[in-house]
Amino acid sequence: MTHTIRTEPLTPAAFAPYGDVMDAIGAPDKMINEGRCGRFHDRAVLDFADGEPGISIFKSAVAALPLEVSLVERHPLGSQAFVPMTQHPFLVVVASDANGVPVDLRAFITEAGQAINFHRGTWHGVLTPLHAPGLFAVIDRTSEGANLEEFRFDTPYLIKG
Amino acid sequence: MTHTIRTEPLTPAAFAPYGDVMDAIGAPDKMINEGRCGRFHDRAVLDFADGEPGISIFKSAVAALPLEVSLVERHPLGSQAFVPMTQHPFLVVVASDANGVPVDLRAFITEAGQAINFHRGTWHGVLTPLHAPGLFAVIDRTSEGANLEEFRFDTPYLIKG
Repeated sequence: MTHTIRTEPLTPAAFAPYGDVMDAIGAPDKMINEGRCGRFHDRAVLDFADGEPGISIFKSAVAALPLEVSLVERHPLGSQAFVPMTQHPFLVVVASDANGVPVDLRAFITEAGQAINFHRGTWHGVLTPLHAPGLFAVIDRTSEGANLEEFRFDTPYLIKG
Repeated sequence: MTHTIRTEPLTPAAFAPYGDVMDAIGAPDKMINEGRCGRFHDRAVLDFADGEPGISIFKSAVAALPLEVSLVERHPLGSQAFVPMTQHPFLVVVASDANGVPVDLRAFITEAGQAINFHRGTWHGVLTPLHAPGLFAVIDRTSEGANLEEFRFDTPYLIKG
């Protein structure tokens, strides 16, 4: 039997077990540029076991809900941040870990203006934009090395809006 | 007398002396996510003398052309990347260095889908979005330390579209 998961709005509190929500909500940490720009400072836990971080651009095909998810992955050697280069929401699937098995899947829908950072080792679904052009900047570990673990579910989860 | 500078389109070749243009133009370095996503891999020279990089969100007031620019700055301890979180163009002012003095100013207008990374120590104007909401993710050195040098011109430059 397929498990069904309802999407939730993405909030920093709800996402805290999995990573960071980066946005410009609330008061900036400081004003710069002669008061013209708010800096919301250092909002992601960048965490790399070794190697170097880099910035890559991802351009992904678009998905639609309801969506079957049968695969999640995690990166044991580093955190991974996704910054949308558009104002479109995207789908963020995460799971907790139980001795190497992803459990308790949750699905979040972002709002315009939210970027995310998966903490190192967090189970997550692959990048899932819901609108073209599916363009993101990704800040993750770019060095060589075994930094990808995948887990395939026997029975897919069905994500519903 | 005010110097007038005409804007140029931002291209990787024209911007090469100052930094990196990150986009999803051309062939991706690899396809991931079962062929659904192109990864344009490691497209910025991240360069930090010491300390740690982080991700911050900037929300800036908007400017319009023609625009007077009388101030540029540089960061001796690290590179600084700006990822627009919208599909709007923004203005990028840069200069060469002549013994500590910014010279030969140039002004670029980005296209939707372009992010930039200023190489460490490059003279540049402050973040200048041309459209609301002026929202960017910034990847730069977030540690404490003297990482800002400013230079104010006696006579402003006038940037024209």
